[in-house]
Order: sequence, then structure tokens, then C-alpha cells
Amino acid sequence: MAQCPDSAAMKATLLAYVERFNAADAQGVAALYADDATVEDPVGAQPVTGKPAILAFYQHAIGLGARLEVVAPPRGSHGDAAALTFAVQARLEGRAARIDVTDVMTFGADGRIRSMRAHWGPDDVHFL
Amino acid sequence: MAQCPDSAAMKATLLAYVERFNAADAQGVAALYADDATVEDPVGAQPVTGKPAILAFYQHAIGLGARLEVVAPPRGSHGDAAALTFAVQARLEGRAARIDVTDVMTFGADGRIRSMRAHWGPDDVHFL
Repeated sequence: MAQCPDSAAMKATLLAYVERFNAADAQGVAALYADDATVEDPVGAQPVTGKPAILAFYQHAIGLGARLEVVAPPRGSHGDAAALTFAVQARLEGRAARIDVTDVMTFGADGRIRSMRAHWGPDDVHFL
Repeated sequence: MAQCPDSAAMKATLLAYVERFNAADAQGVAALYADDATVEDPVGAQPVTGKPAILAFYQHAIGLGARLEVVAPPRGSHGDAAALTFAVQARLEGRAARIDVTDVMTFGADGRIRSMRAHWGPDDVHFL
């Protein structure tokens, strides 16, 4: 079996992801990803692949003024995956909204994120 | 693209899963799964495959007196996956414990669960 990053290290990366996102540091968020990583947000959409596209994805999201609020401690695993459950506070169509999301990330042996899948559906968007 | 169950239907199944588990209804939990489904609990363990093995898995877990407490509303997706974040209250090695978990399920077009992956690591087990 390939070596996995430990569960605590994966969780620390998930929390760094939130901190950097909320500090409007798109470069810092993108730096958590492997060069050939994929981002599927939401699950069911066409994945974004590779660091330049991932950076552009976060520049766009951060530019919209989105903010992440963690609602439960991150979960690790005995494998290469960890999960984070949070709410996105954002403005959509000129109105305040909350999107309920659970991200699942997989990690390489170097601790960088290899894939992100954001679980949220049309019914997870709540106008406030 | 294959037809997906809608996000609300997937969430309803996740909540039925918790209700049946907490009612000690292992048969009812197993009935939510497709015949050839897989359960990987925790992520990184060898998956349990097929309905008889899945039923035995839940009979064992329920027999240990485990109880599930949902800590955030389930998340759907624009695809075939949904996520549920909860805590397992259980006795481990004779002591009360809480295990922090996020399950990700995928669903077939018939609404039954095709796969379950339980995200929890060694550091998600908290003795109380």
C-alpha cells in the first residue's frame, strides 16, 4: 500500500485551507494542491484540473466575497482522504445566502491535496 | 450521463439510515443498499461487499450499542453522492467514546446506496 499522510496532517491542511480562503489568499489555497490536482465543485460538475485552473477557480470564489464557516471538526481516515463540513456565506443574485457543503479531499504522500470534491446540491443553497 | 437520484431523495435516505440504525434495525439499514453495494468503514479499510456482508456489518455495529448523532444537515450534490456528518456514541474497551465521522454515500438511479465510505481516523476517536 502506498504511504498515506497521517490523519492529523490532513486535518491541519483542511483548516489551513479555510484560513487562507478567508484571508482572501487564493495563491495560498492553490499552494495546498498538487500540480495535477482536480477540483469537482459541486460533485456532478466538470472537474477543474491543474494548478493554474485551480488558482483561477479560487480567485473567482474569493472575489465574490465568499466566506467559509466550519461547522464540525474535520474528519480524517485510515487512508488518504479527509472531510470538512462547513457553510459558505456569500451573496448570490444580490442576496445573502448560505451554502451547506462537505468537502472531501484526497492527499498524496507529500501531504498535498490530490483531489477535492464539494458535496452540495441545489437544495443546499439557502437564501437568508 | 446516467440519471441521478435527486439531492433531496439522497438526503432523505441518509436520515432514514440514521433512524433505522438507532432503532437497532440492521435489516432496515441493509435494505437501503443495492445488492452489490460496498461499505468502506473506515476509509482505508478493506471494503465490505454485498448485502449479506453489509447486513452482518450493521448487526455487529448495532450489537455493540453504538448510536448515531447527526451534527449537521446532510449535504447533497449535483451528481450521485451525498454526505452526512455525525458522531457515533459507543463503548470501546469498556469506556464511553465518541467517534467523529463523515459518511459519503453514492446512489444508483433507483435511489439505493451503491457505496458508503466512512471518513474517520485514529484521531477521531475521543474517550469521554
